[in-house]
Amino acid sequence: MGQDLLGIEHLEAEEIVKILDTAERMQEIATREVKKVPTLRGHTVVNLFFEPSTRTASSFEIAGKRLSADVVNFSVSSSSLTKAESILDTAQTLDAMDPDCVIVRHPVAGVPKRIADVLHAPVINAGDGAHEHPTQALLDMLTVRQEKGRIDGLAVAIVGDIMHSRVARSNIYGFTKMGAEVRVTGPPTMLPPDIAELGVKPSTSLREAIDGADVVMMLRIQRERLSGALFPSIREYAATFGLDRAKLRYARDDAIVMHPGPVNRGVELSHDLVDHSPSVILDQVRNGVALRMAVLYLIAGRADSGERG
Amino acid sequence: MGQDLLGIEHLEAEEIVKILDTAERMQEIATREVKKVPTLRGHTVVNLFFEPSTRTASSFEIAGKRLSADVVNFSVSSSSLTKAESILDTAQTLDAMDPDCVIVRHPVAGVPKRIADVLHAPVINAGDGAHEHPTQALLDMLTVRQEKGRIDGLAVAIVGDIMHSRVARSNIYGFTKMGAEVRVTGPPTMLPPDIAELGVKPSTSLREAIDGADVVMMLRIQRERLSGALFPSIREYAATFGLDRAKLRYARDDAIVMHPGPVNRGVELSHDLVDHSPSVILDQVRNGVALRMAVLYLIAGRADSGERG
Amino acid sequence: MGQDLLGIEHLEAEEIVKILDTAERMQEIATREVKKVPTLRGHTVVNLFFEPSTRTASSFEIAGKRLSADVVNFSVSSSSLTKAESILDTAQTLDAMDPDCVIVRHPVAGVPKRIADVLHAPVINAGDGAHEHPTQALLDMLTVRQEKGRIDGLAVAIVGDIMHSRVARSNIYGFTKMGAEVRVTGPPTMLPPDIAELGVKPSTSLREAIDGADVVMMLRIQRERLSGALFPSIREYAATFGLDRAKLRYARDDAIVMHPGPVNRGVELSHDLVDHSPSVILDQVRNGVALRMAVLYLIAGRADSGERG
Repeated sequence: MGQDLLGIEHLEAEEIVKILDTAERMQEIATREVKKVPTLRGHTVVNLFFEPSTRTASSFEIAGKRLSADVVNFSVSSSSLTKAESILDTAQTLDAMDPDCVIVRHPVAGVPKRIADVLHAPVINAGDGAHEHPTQALLDMLTVRQEKGRIDGLAVAIVGDIMHSRVARSNIYGFTKMGAEVRVTGPPTMLPPDIAELGVKPSTSLREAIDGADVVMMLRIQRERLSGALFPSIREYAATFGLDRAKLRYARDDAIVMHPGPVNRGVELSHDLVDHSPSVILDQVRNGVALRMAVLYLIAGRADSGERG
Repeated sequence: MGQDLLGIEHLEAEEIVKILDTAERMQEIATREVKKVPTLRGHTVVNLFFEPSTRTASSFEIAGKRLSADVVNFSVSSSSLTKAESILDTAQTLDAMDPDCVIVRHPVAGVPKRIADVLHAPVINAGDGAHEHPTQALLDMLTVRQEKGRIDGLAVAIVGDIMHSRVARSNIYGFTKMGAEVRVTGPPTMLPPDIAELGVKPSTSLREAIDGADVVMMLRIQRERLSGALFPSIREYAATFGLDRAKLRYARDDAIVMHPGPVNRGVELSHDLVDHSPSVILDQVRNGVALRMAVLYLIAGRADSGERG
Repeated sequence: MGQDLLGIEHLEAEEIVKILDTAERMQEIATREVKKVPTLRGHTVVNLFFEPSTRTASSFEIAGKRLSADVVNFSVSSSSLTKAESILDTAQTLDAMDPDCVIVRHPVAGVPKRIADVLHAPVINAGDGAHEHPTQALLDMLTVRQEKGRIDGLAVAIVGDIMHSRVARSNIYGFTKMGAEVRVTGPPTMLPPDIAELGVKPSTSLREAIDGADVVMMLRIQRERLSGALFPSIREYAATFGLDRAKLRYARDDAIVMHPGPVNRGVELSHDLVDHSPSVILDQVRNGVALRMAVLYLIAGRADSGERG
């Protein structure tokens, strides 16, 4: 891993393994009476979110605090900072306050990279447009590895709006690197034409995609995309690509169901599957804190060893 | 006290006494040079507010930090989460991050209870619709006990929009449990018809209600309720149910005046009474921090003893 | 320095020197592996901002946390608190929670002073209308002293909307007290007619103002002021009072260029000068954290010695 974590695309499998191993050691901390270690005491972690987020921002904030870092939340409506210039100026201003790590979410793909290019502090991408959301993919891999004991050789089906999903993209990179067979499915309008080049098997049939799958990962559908151009209606989407217990039978008996949240209940996932096994949605959230502790530890902790100018 | 604090209605008098006693020990901490104890170090307290609040949220935040807890603020506009389903999903997501306590404010009565039903973490109700606001009533009882040396046997008059006030409701439960005589007064349209069933003496005469009272507790009036249906005008409300020094003479000579804040100056309370004795409004605020420290200590500290699954 | 820091106008030169000296000791902390000292442990610092601010609020937050203070952010849209009465009530409510310091920003000149008059906690003005922004001027003086080795005897030119700038006003007070020669320049409509009474030399010629200057301080121009009444157009403003490398030649060869940020690139400052030497914009930001640590230490730390009732 370089000093930044901008995506899964350029990580090596062994780097992923190192992050997951570190996260498992972090999980132990959450079981202690005092769920806190002094690892990042005196370190400043900045949450720089240009897009509203409660789940991811809170997860990073809790992760940072459990490592004793000082977490500073810095939310900017992207509308007030429309020009890339102002975004970079804002980031550089924060950088001059000597943070040890800046976590960036932005609605436009590539902005975290551009910020990382000008910052001294390491940058963690917390989601940029339809590009990548690396910590989500890492926590998903952690969850699968713990549920299944391995990732290599598993069949993982990703279902939904593949085209616009940074979660899908990061998971495709991650699971293929780790040796899983990845299938993707969704309405034809939501499948990028060149998706097979990423080493996945596309299909427009949910049944075909999840047939014998070990993991079925449902994506959140943006309701505004389900009217007109990309798909006729929410009801039809739910009927065709929504998952319920009946359709889940096509997967392996011991398949698990994942979702990055928040779920549109009754659309991409039936109420029953949101709330009960074999879905592991809340485990994903729980693992997210440990995973982000690991990433903060590996990235923000580096500054100590003087690897940064 | 159960593991949650959802209201005063189901507390026993001895539980209230225990909380007040604990709060008095917490008050001592505020007098130290270092106003901080390590009691909740490594504990995570989440402020989950679905309704804007600066006073109560800050009070809980300061209380948590004085106990060395990590406090995570999570404000959600209730408009973006209109369905109960999304509210519960949001709360469960936070719960999966292993907080030690979740403080909930919501404009709809009963939501904190519904959240508590599905959460592992204990829940503190910081105000739900017109239902309850237990920490406000507890800090009010603490203030009265310290000002008067006791609660038992006192005459407490609550003045204003009894119908829509969670502060009134929680205080009625609390003060009657603690042996006080509680009177309530306000415009007939703001007095619930069955209010006497709670053991209080209703009246539509301010003079009658505060006659010989030891404590006069004024409620904040929602200005939008003072136009039309419930009351003809703000001016008439102030003249009839607003308190000034002249009217205060009906109460005992040593009566104190309380208000949960923020005050509509010149409406429910004259400027003079807001700013000067015998009003104890800022003591209420100050006691609020100690009281919330006590509640956090009793509730969030419990998780350590393994009483929770 | 009194217990509050409301402006530079009433500071003595030796008080300024003491703050700058303290800030230089604080700068050393940022170079440590653990950038944190326990100085203000158990102290509560409240950021009370009635005007949106990310830079200044973050700078104070990071400064407080590096001193181990608990920082509570309290942002209030000024629209929801239009009457001075409510502002003071809000401030008094916070005060009753026993903070050790309240940092106030407000769009109306004089509000921090009014708040300080009623609060027990010391108040730091973080910018009030067109009045003062003392910590900005102090960090500017710190930056100049470190770049130039002294302030006394330097020629400092301040360029832009002098009339509406609290940064200009505080810097005029500060640099003249410290023995610098201060010149101000801008469009005639943006130069207060009585500005010379502050001991500065006004000019409507940029060239004249920066001729032989050691320091050229550019102000942020409010774009909404550049249409009609005060100035014909942004383009003409940039041509006349914007700084680029060609115009900078009129200043001393070793002149530095400053800006309080955020910069309107291409308006008051050319892109080139924003990003490269001799501009010291990011040093100003960096020094801002150390300067605010010094101010918090000197002000919030005082409460310990019982100097406050």
